[in-house]
Amino acid sequence: MDELKAYIQKVSDATNETLEWILPPDTLYPASIHSLMRYSSFAGGKRLRPCLVIAAYEACGGEFNNPKILKIAAAIEMFHTFSLIHDDLPCMDDDDFRRGKPTAHKAYSEALAVLGGDALCIMAFEVLASIERVDIIAEIAAALGTGGMLGGQVVDIESEGKKVDRATVEYIHNNKTAALIRASVIAGALLANAPPDALEKLSSYGNNVGLAFQVVDDILDEESTTEALGKNVGSDRDKGKATFPSIVGMEESKRYAQELIENAWKDIEFLGEKNKILKDLAEYIRIRIS
Amino acid sequence: MDELKAYIQKVSDATNETLEWILPPDTLYPASIHSLMRYSSFAGGKRLRPCLVIAAYEACGGEFNNPKILKIAAAIEMFHTFSLIHDDLPCMDDDDFRRGKPTAHKAYSEALAVLGGDALCIMAFEVLASIERVDIIAEIAAALGTGGMLGGQVVDIESEGKKVDRATVEYIHNNKTAALIRASVIAGALLANAPPDALEKLSSYGNNVGLAFQVVDDILDEESTTEALGKNVGSDRDKGKATFPSIVGMEESKRYAQELIENAWKDIEFLGEKNKILKDLAEYIRIRIS
Repeated sequence: MDELKAYIQKVSDATNETLEWILPPDTLYPASIHSLMRYSSFAGGKRLRPCLVIAAYEACGGEFNNPKILKIAAAIEMFHTFSLIHDDLPCMDDDDFRRGKPTAHKAYSEALAVLGGDALCIMAFEVLASIERVDIIAEIAAALGTGGMLGGQVVDIESEGKKVDRATVEYIHNNKTAALIRASVIAGALLANAPPDALEKLSSYGNNVGLAFQVVDDILDEESTTEALGKNVGSDRDKGKATFPSIVGMEESKRYAQELIENAWKDIEFLGEKNKILKDLAEYIRIRIS
Repeated sequence: MDELKAYIQKVSDATNETLEWILPPDTLYPASIHSLMRYSSFAGGKRLRPCLVIAAYEACGGEFNNPKILKIAAAIEMFHTFSLIHDDLPCMDDDDFRRGKPTAHKAYSEALAVLGGDALCIMAFEVLASIERVDIIAEIAAALGTGGMLGGQVVDIESEGKKVDRATVEYIHNNKTAALIRASVIAGALLANAPPDALEKLSSYGNNVGLAFQVVDDILDEESTTEALGKNVGSDRDKGKATFPSIVGMEESKRYAQELIENAWKDIEFLGEKNKILKDLAEYIRIRIS
């Protein structure tokens, strides 16, 4: 895993550098919103999605230092940050802390958090437009919309405090979390001009990894420490959130996460030795709970 | 003006038809967000921006029934609706009514209003991607971001209840309102492949018309009736909003609106007889206060 950790560090550094020049300086008028955009963008995210964008691109023949793939990686992270800022709002999950720091609406204001989230989303589309690939814009927009991330978020909010079935939790996780993770993989593959059969297999890989990521997140929410999580342990349960462990139990959740990772590995066998980083990234998600 | 009214009706019908098939049915799961998106999209907007998109396109040689220009017109209206939904939120302008109907967060919920606004914005980019013109996406995204609409919205919120100068109100109006109106004109001209000098003049026309529109809106907020406005007369003043009449007086506001419209007319003289609808649209904005 040392090689993977070095890779994650390299992607994280490159993503941060790219975000650094994309995001307006926090002195630019109106300063408050630019300051918020930077505050939330540099709040200590692990940059998992940029890793998947770039690893898929490289696995399909692309080269790390292409400015276009770094822009896509940064844009995906901006979309992710936008979704977190809006998720944390009082009218949504009402979270005061994320990764141990005050959430955007606590550090600034609710109005600025709504507008700052909007601004990150819109600016990310502007960044994608500069790459001149409408297929990548269409893919990501579909993953973010009501047939993806936002649809999952709606059902997540509407399921709070209710007894839901396994299919509903799978719907929430597949859409709220896995859709953008899957689109990250596909965006990298599209920029590398991967053929249709490769896109199909990578799409399945992205789904499996994305769903596994959220199932593992559910497990950690129950089993980790408050310090490690940067938020209270069991906070999802306290909110009456639909989680995997609450519906199928802890043992079945762990078995399912393992199965999803194994399926993800099978999906990328076709890449041969070039699948190493994508394979290790899937394993990296799993070992958080082993 | 009869010819213009027929034109506005034709554009409004075509925009509504286009939105009708773009927007997901309100029975599609998750139904609540799709229902909200339709509720706000068909809440009785005048479709001024679609008129400007299509009139600019036709003035530059385009044909009305091109599905691409109708998609751009619908997308611009979706961006506009997204901005209204978020503007009306309790943490922003806290408006319970718009055009005489309950605002989205009153008719649904705050959480759904945040997510439904997000969804309209994201889906509008998806619609634009289908036109395969990244220059149009870049133009509109820049107009919506912190260097445009969202920047104006931030300063608008932060100026509430404060004594501001004329330059600040001009900044707010130029960005919050005029930026997207200008981008509407430019998007139409870009699809018609207008040359750079035409784009420059139409950009100035869009700025002048957009600023005039908001100055007239400020005047109407003071002088119209509650019934005609669909919201309370003087509601901007009551909120301590920075408006033109509150800073330079009613007489100067009306003179300035007239000057802006005349400048807009000069901008489009180069189009010769093809400028008729764009000219009448500018006049249409002015006569609301004459």
